[in-house]
Amino acid sequence: MSILIKDVQLEGDVTQIYIEGNRIAEIGKRREADTVLDGKGRIALPGLVNLHTHAAMSLFRGYGDDMDLSTWLETRIWPAEARLTPDDVYWGTKLACLEMIKSGTTTFNDMYFHEDQAAKAAKEMGLRAFLAEGIVDLNDPERAAKQLRAADEANRKIESLRTDRINGVLGPHAIYTVSKDSLLRIRELADKTGSLIHIHLSETKREVDDCLVENGMRPARYLDSIGFLAKDVIAAHGCWLDAGEIEVLAHTGTMVAHCPVSNMKLATGQAMAYVAMKEMGLVMGLGTDGAASNNNLDMFETMKVAALLQKHAHGDPKVLPAREAFELATLGGARALGVDAGIIGVGRLADLILIDPRRAEFTPRHDDVSNWVYSAHGNIVDTLICDGQVLMRGRRVKGEAEILEKAAAVARDLVSRA
Amino acid sequence: MSILIKDVQLEGDVTQIYIEGNRIAEIGKRREADTVLDGKGRIALPGLVNLHTHAAMSLFRGYGDDMDLSTWLETRIWPAEARLTPDDVYWGTKLACLEMIKSGTTTFNDMYFHEDQAAKAAKEMGLRAFLAEGIVDLNDPERAAKQLRAADEANRKIESLRTDRINGVLGPHAIYTVSKDSLLRIRELADKTGSLIHIHLSETKREVDDCLVENGMRPARYLDSIGFLAKDVIAAHGCWLDAGEIEVLAHTGTMVAHCPVSNMKLATGQAMAYVAMKEMGLVMGLGTDGAASNNNLDMFETMKVAALLQKHAHGDPKVLPAREAFELATLGGARALGVDAGIIGVGRLADLILIDPRRAEFTPRHDDVSNWVYSAHGNIVDTLICDGQVLMRGRRVKGEAEILEKAAAVARDLVSRA
Repeated sequence: MSILIKDVQLEGDVTQIYIEGNRIAEIGKRREADTVLDGKGRIALPGLVNLHTHAAMSLFRGYGDDMDLSTWLETRIWPAEARLTPDDVYWGTKLACLEMIKSGTTTFNDMYFHEDQAAKAAKEMGLRAFLAEGIVDLNDPERAAKQLRAADEANRKIESLRTDRINGVLGPHAIYTVSKDSLLRIRELADKTGSLIHIHLSETKREVDDCLVENGMRPARYLDSIGFLAKDVIAAHGCWLDAGEIEVLAHTGTMVAHCPVSNMKLATGQAMAYVAMKEMGLVMGLGTDGAASNNNLDMFETMKVAALLQKHAHGDPKVLPAREAFELATLGGARALGVDAGIIGVGRLADLILIDPRRAEFTPRHDDVSNWVYSAHGNIVDTLICDGQVLMRGRRVKGEAEILEKAAAVARDLVSRA
Repeated sequence: MSILIKDVQLEGDVTQIYIEGNRIAEIGKRREADTVLDGKGRIALPGLVNLHTHAAMSLFRGYGDDMDLSTWLETRIWPAEARLTPDDVYWGTKLACLEMIKSGTTTFNDMYFHEDQAAKAAKEMGLRAFLAEGIVDLNDPERAAKQLRAADEANRKIESLRTDRINGVLGPHAIYTVSKDSLLRIRELADKTGSLIHIHLSETKREVDDCLVENGMRPARYLDSIGFLAKDVIAAHGCWLDAGEIEVLAHTGTMVAHCPVSNMKLATGQAMAYVAMKEMGLVMGLGTDGAASNNNLDMFETMKVAALLQKHAHGDPKVLPAREAFELATLGGARALGVDAGIIGVGRLADLILIDPRRAEFTPRHDDVSNWVYSAHGNIVDTLICDGQVLMRGRRVKGEAEILEKAAAVARDLVSRA
């Protein structure tokens, strides 16, 4: 199967993009193709990569905002999650994929429960997904054994759905919910299988303080002390990492997902030390976190808020300029996940979007990068191609009405059971 | 002229909204009307009020981001503004009005140059506008006399265009650009004419420090010491106001426009003390600031970022909940400007919008207010009515293509002259 995108704007020029199978085969020449998309007036950009989310939590969008983290978890999220069914995760992930497609995301890095259902949903929707069954043992050996078995089972099911797009990942939730023994077991598994590891790290000051009390060292140093950190680990949040810990991440090759919207909404209290991480050469990307703490999956908004938060936190408007925010959301995330995308180039995976700049908030066009980072939202995306498949064209996605209806019904039912 | 909005959702119920002239005449009953809008599946909300902007600066969108404030002003904005023509302001304001209509704003409070042209643009576009010719005398008595004459002339021209929607306002730029004599003259004029006053106040630490050096007191205290503050003053930004100054604002009835996106983008360094202001009962609203430092005029985004910034700054996720953010952006701004809108009620001005919740980022609907503050952007607005006139229906605005084309051409020409 082949696609030709005719007369599209790419980095300032008007050109032709020819896709064969799941890769970009040629740029510049018009060729015959099975599908021809008219790119006139549109701009081609790499698809966005959401490096940290809990897709199915879109079912909890708006279910308990403006609350203390502990009250929110204890009175809203945990009681509802205790009743979560595989079908809930399936429809919640379908809804999240729909929202991601509509706002330009082609790849997401997910952690949640019943992830085989998330895999099924992502496979059907056509997105590139990295899926980690969340492991939470609360230092209980029995629970640890059960959770590791469940994760293993989920990963085997994900493996059975495996394509170039669907990948299993190991998902220890965080140091305060997973025992040292389980972390070591997960480290071994990653070494054996080559899986990535996705973990929350240093999101709150409480996590840091508790780790200091329990282990006499800060979270990243603790993980390093047990040999957990390596270049296959993606650490989400990192708000409270200090300079010494950032050095540890750099030396071990640990990667970071910055989640500015969720961090601000939950008032984690401190912005991730982006400048220090950049200076140490960390591989970084951006994540929305789940829609329950954001409350959307719009990576255009996340790019802008990342730039705003970092400028504000550093007291310097030059920090995290538009081009860097865009690269974090594309190439940064792609590098973290080992996906050969994040830029549009011959031989790269065909994960790309066409945006439509003919609108007020995109006028004038003094600086396109600035416009798409600071002025735009996800609704500027007109067409989305992932892995060489057209998933949206003229903002139409197959099955949209059914997904909205089913997800709404499932969400209503889920919270009524809680 | 009359409008019936049929079967629309209003605060959870499905109802009918009947508009006669420029006011809401009845809610609940189906009536015959000149225009019937089908509100089925849509939610009616009050139109948003942008309490601080420089509309025509949309021509500078993306023209110098990620720069030091002084470098940006000196190398980009001021050279270009020195060449600004009345026609530039006309097309810049048309573009801004188009963007505001498309994102749900019915009223804006503006400060810029050639404001009679802004008045003409706003009048044609149908928005409710409060327009202040910016006064900058730089302590030069000759310039002061000239600027006050220009402001007076602009206001007379605005007066000649006056309708219920188009209002002249006095616009001393800030304490560091306007002499004490001019401030006193403006205070007198306001007392005489009943005009509102729109001023920047305590945006940067530099302004505070310079005021301490020059006047031995902080900016709000300085303004109070010369008798400038009163319940007709709208102060924009207020990032560096301290507790004593907030008391002064409360006692004088001074109102505040919070501009979180611009403050973060320009790294003004400190978030406005929202909680203290709320406790003192200040009338407050939200502003986008100009598109050159935002870079859009989307009040939905501004509501969300206001909530995010205040939660972050106070280290408390309960601060500035969704309902409050929404009220700041509607009733708060309307109260500040003395506009009888900001809520939908019988007898109120017919300034309202219909939003379309049938989309992924609005599903599920556990909490509508949360969805429109935290999940939505301006593109959810389907229909906009201002002063009893339908300005947008099905996202179509009259003259859109011409405005985009002309504004883009004018912007290109403007920066090429600079």
